[in-house]
Amino acid sequence: MIVVMKPFATQAMVDRIRGRVEELGMKPHVIVGVERTVIAATGSESSGIQAELEACEEVEKVMPILAPYKIASRETRREPTVVTTGSLTVGGGHIGVIAGPCSVESEEQILEVAAQVKEAGATALRGGAFKPRTSPYAFQGMKEVGLELLAQAREATGLAVVTEVMTPHHVEMVCRYADVLQIGARNMQNYHLLQAVGETRKPVLLKRGPSATMEEFLLAAEYVLDQGNQQVILCERGIRTFETHTRFTLPLATVPYLREKTHLPIVVDPSHGTGIASLVPAMAAASVAAGADGLIIEVHPNPSKAVSDGSQTLTPAAFEATMHTCRKIAEVLGKTM
Amino acid sequence: MIVVMKPFATQAMVDRIRGRVEELGMKPHVIVGVERTVIAATGSESSGIQAELEACEEVEKVMPILAPYKIASRETRREPTVVTTGSLTVGGGHIGVIAGPCSVESEEQILEVAAQVKEAGATALRGGAFKPRTSPYAFQGMKEVGLELLAQAREATGLAVVTEVMTPHHVEMVCRYADVLQIGARNMQNYHLLQAVGETRKPVLLKRGPSATMEEFLLAAEYVLDQGNQQVILCERGIRTFETHTRFTLPLATVPYLREKTHLPIVVDPSHGTGIASLVPAMAAASVAAGADGLIIEVHPNPSKAVSDGSQTLTPAAFEATMHTCRKIAEVLGKTM
Amino acid sequence: MIVVMKPFATQAMVDRIRGRVEELGMKPHVIVGVERTVIAATGSESSGIQAELEACEEVEKVMPILAPYKIASRETRREPTVVTTGSLTVGGGHIGVIAGPCSVESEEQILEVAAQVKEAGATALRGGAFKPRTSPYAFQGMKEVGLELLAQAREATGLAVVTEVMTPHHVEMVCRYADVLQIGARNMQNYHLLQAVGETRKPVLLKRGPSATMEEFLLAAEYVLDQGNQQVILCERGIRTFETHTRFTLPLATVPYLREKTHLPIVVDPSHGTGIASLVPAMAAASVAAGADGLIIEVHPNPSKAVSDGSQTLTPAAFEATMHTCRKIAEVLGKTM
Amino acid sequence: MIVVMKPFATQAMVDRIRGRVEELGMKPHVIVGVERTVIAATGSESSGIQAELEACEEVEKVMPILAPYKIASRETRREPTVVTTGSLTVGGGHIGVIAGPCSVESEEQILEVAAQVKEAGATALRGGAFKPRTSPYAFQGMKEVGLELLAQAREATGLAVVTEVMTPHHVEMVCRYADVLQIGARNMQNYHLLQAVGETRKPVLLKRGPSATMEEFLLAAEYVLDQGNQQVILCERGIRTFETHTRFTLPLATVPYLREKTHLPIVVDPSHGTGIASLVPAMAAASVAAGADGLIIEVHPNPSKAVSDGSQTLTPAAFEATMHTCRKIAEVLGKTM
Repeated sequence: MIVVMKPFATQAMVDRIRGRVEELGMKPHVIVGVERTVIAATGSESSGIQAELEACEEVEKVMPILAPYKIASRETRREPTVVTTGSLTVGGGHIGVIAGPCSVESEEQILEVAAQVKEAGATALRGGAFKPRTSPYAFQGMKEVGLELLAQAREATGLAVVTEVMTPHHVEMVCRYADVLQIGARNMQNYHLLQAVGETRKPVLLKRGPSATMEEFLLAAEYVLDQGNQQVILCERGIRTFETHTRFTLPLATVPYLREKTHLPIVVDPSHGTGIASLVPAMAAASVAAGADGLIIEVHPNPSKAVSDGSQTLTPAAFEATMHTCRKIAEVLGKTM
Repeated sequence: MIVVMKPFATQAMVDRIRGRVEELGMKPHVIVGVERTVIAATGSESSGIQAELEACEEVEKVMPILAPYKIASRETRREPTVVTTGSLTVGGGHIGVIAGPCSVESEEQILEVAAQVKEAGATALRGGAFKPRTSPYAFQGMKEVGLELLAQAREATGLAVVTEVMTPHHVEMVCRYADVLQIGARNMQNYHLLQAVGETRKPVLLKRGPSATMEEFLLAAEYVLDQGNQQVILCERGIRTFETHTRFTLPLATVPYLREKTHLPIVVDPSHGTGIASLVPAMAAASVAAGADGLIIEVHPNPSKAVSDGSQTLTPAAFEATMHTCRKIAEVLGKTM
Repeated sequence: MIVVMKPFATQAMVDRIRGRVEELGMKPHVIVGVERTVIAATGSESSGIQAELEACEEVEKVMPILAPYKIASRETRREPTVVTTGSLTVGGGHIGVIAGPCSVESEEQILEVAAQVKEAGATALRGGAFKPRTSPYAFQGMKEVGLELLAQAREATGLAVVTEVMTPHHVEMVCRYADVLQIGARNMQNYHLLQAVGETRKPVLLKRGPSATMEEFLLAAEYVLDQGNQQVILCERGIRTFETHTRFTLPLATVPYLREKTHLPIVVDPSHGTGIASLVPAMAAASVAAGADGLIIEVHPNPSKAVSDGSQTLTPAAFEATMHTCRKIAEVLGKTM
Repeated sequence: MIVVMKPFATQAMVDRIRGRVEELGMKPHVIVGVERTVIAATGSESSGIQAELEACEEVEKVMPILAPYKIASRETRREPTVVTTGSLTVGGGHIGVIAGPCSVESEEQILEVAAQVKEAGATALRGGAFKPRTSPYAFQGMKEVGLELLAQAREATGLAVVTEVMTPHHVEMVCRYADVLQIGARNMQNYHLLQAVGETRKPVLLKRGPSATMEEFLLAAEYVLDQGNQQVILCERGIRTFETHTRFTLPLATVPYLREKTHLPIVVDPSHGTGIASLVPAMAAASVAAGADGLIIEVHPNPSKAVSDGSQTLTPAAFEATMHTCRKIAEVLGKTM
């Protein structure tokens, strides 16, 4: 941790902060420059220590050196984590493809689309039974009935089921039906929920919040990992920026960046990341080229009849064409899909 | 709702969409322009209808006309909502001031600061017992013991207690101690939590999420209102932008903008909104000048010993000076504080 | 243009605005809904008309229907524009690759790197002679001497030269040496400069400003096109968002989005778009997969000795490996590179 | 400058970077921590040195300690700069108010509005003769005729004239008519223009670019100051964020923040900062309360007939009411206006 003293700091001020650094359990190294004195504090950093030093009047700013996440870090574990459950494998040179409708709407709908996405090469089925909706007046999902239909679709196709859980109270119920627990973007910092899914042994698909930094994203994963659940898949799904021509801005540099920082696998959601069906195929291909370990894509037999998110949903035919291109790009990179 | 057809749309396409608008229960009005045909659809708009029309291939874009929130809208209720509980009144020409530490740390700390902020003119006490922290390794709050200490401070000072509830499971417990339930920024779209506090009859202080639009913010309030709880205070606490010299960017135009759109009272949090104690007094004054109905400010007897957020926390002396200026500005605007 | 009246607008107010729409040369169609009256105005839209209507007290908002750019629009010209100059072709199924150092530093440096990037497959040479620098104390470029060295490198390698022009006064001079005039991101809305390059017949590489919307970007191109210069290449180079782990956020959805809106070719700059050399190869590959018509990449014989932007600059070896992958992805998409 | 070595850096790597720091003219101090080695480099920092060190493979990141601006810094000059020209004084406890139309439209219009804003207490007249417009098809200003009309209005009212200059070639002409040269937000990093106005001895009103950081803003001022022109007024006019309910997001914390960093005076433009006339009075009041040294506000005799920006323009009556409130808040703060 680097503590930068204010300009014109006196020796007494420097001594006081040096003492404070020691009290906080770190070792101070004072470096006197021409315009500023800085104190390099070595030892175990924490956000608490940083906050206490920042609040000292003599201090201009405090710059941490170490990443605050530990279990998620590549420095802790060099080899990549591969998440496998039933038909789905994500990471380790294999690109998992999770496809399906935004919402489970009916038995007929979910069985039809499950068969279609399987045929096109998807290795898991997505579908929302509990739907976080911006408006209280929008369709909120079929709830447990929807979960039952997802399980039925797994029976019929063999596809692993990925579905969202919205509140700690539902974790046990969702675990009875799902293969992968999805944490939605709005809940990325719902810490009680993260701890609750961390206590299970189901893989967790953690979506990045639309204004989350990389550090916040990895610390959210750390909440799950810290409970003993090592099966975390990170999902980039777009951030909120000034751009309005797309629903969100999809920053694919997330993929190679996270690759350097963490051993956890990274998937991309080009459906939410763009919000526009006609842009999804290009961005799915770009995600694979950027090195993603997986894709999660919205597909519906008839997007214009979908109860939610129709405008970003592919038809089965468009999904199949997308898969074809992505598979060839995966081959260029020496990966299977 | 305005449905803009794609360029070169044929008459058959226009007819199909006109039919779809009717099926969805709205009345279509076709307007043929030189470069585009648009269909104005009158009747009851919904996000579901918008989504279905957007997903039609013949449609370029759909522009809603009506705001999606209803109970929160000034069109539903012209007179301002005033929230009163114990010592705290927010709205209706009275500026409520909620002050106290980021976290409850000890009996001594909370009693001392409660007395100090009361002395300086605060009308409610803030203090976190359950703390949402970015890192799982940071202090998570004193939990129920903290709530007890807050209740004790209310006994001692008469100040109403404002404190955060993080998960639906805790709502009942927090209600036993608190006068106002705070929903933190990270939980603004935690819909199960919003519904749970909506079922109580305690006032709710709803913080804006750091990437929430005005519409999303008001729809989050609508989740609470829709459960029958009319006592919602909106809180602007800063948004995430490219600026890094402050912790968040504090957009005070929120205050007059929301005044035009909603009858709910609006308070501002200049502590989180800047993250820097030296900027808080100016931004508190600016908030009052912008028309805020209240302030929520972090104060600690010794900021550099605070367990969290010390760098944005005022000393009791700085808080008193801030109150002095703010009160005079309130007088200029014809308000009491 | 859709004019939404305020709630509770009287018939007299509606009549007044209908009259105003007619005065402004458009044809009004009044549609009375349950909660709002809207007036659809057909005819030739302009930002001036929109502004005048928005400023009327009776009006809640005005929503344009038509895109404000004309010459750049795909509706004006369906077939893609292909820009060709010397060794460089951008668009029409051919991916142009512009590579070279951030700044021209010396004869030796520019000749060495020109030979290296040509060997690896680049089809044009980049290099700054006039450098816009955030600080007045940073290296500002070799100026005309730098231009001469670029021309010398073209002699030696046959590579077309792409270089930045910063002010109208220099346009003539830069034209004497360069094959493509680059407009930097900071100057995207420097309208006198856009007009000055529009008056030449040199191709223009127009970089997106870091906070420019798609509409502003295309309107900046329109400034050039409107002067009669049809050879405009659009360049996505990253936008400013809350992300700080990369220098900018590189939103690749720009590529397929612009493809739908304009006939102009689109290249991507993964060097500025990430600011981190280790992320450039993955983002170059992703750009090609997203459908880009070209790449512009910083390469230097010894990045850690570069006078500017070293941390985002590839070594010749890394550039060659990147080209290899990109070329294979181009083949998957049926393009040449 | 703090150079953080990569994890697992060997002694040889540390030695190499220590040597590099010395070669670059700084003094290295090696600090070995448990997880990282850092090298504190004292001496004269520069962006060039930072870039060179960041480009070294052994280096994880480089954190500068010193601000890159010098002449603009409060550390260079403690007492505030006060800019005075004719009727206008900005800074030193006096709030200057610059008001007038977006564009000069006619002799009648500018003389009428000049008289009106003077009557209400403005101390300078604004009005655009050269208008930077997003679309090439929008009104571009009356040019030199507009400048003549501004000078005529100064004759009639005694108000100092503030007007924009867009390109270096026009600086001399604009100087003949204007009292203060305005640099628009789009040109904040048009360095040739900054240098050209820096060579004059006219005060410069420098608007913040919509995506400029504080450091970039102060470095743009530094370009002017470095040419010997000390009369720079900084102007906050809103930044581009994800918010769309206002034209820009107006971050008033800029005012107290810049106060700590620079001696230059700071004015706020609530007209562009919100884009909505009904929000301007509250944000003008908030700007004064935040400590601004001045305001720049758009006023037009008939906003709905204005050729540009009508929707953000106050009527003379609304401006007068705004002035009344602002003046009282200025008194609370012990300032004159």
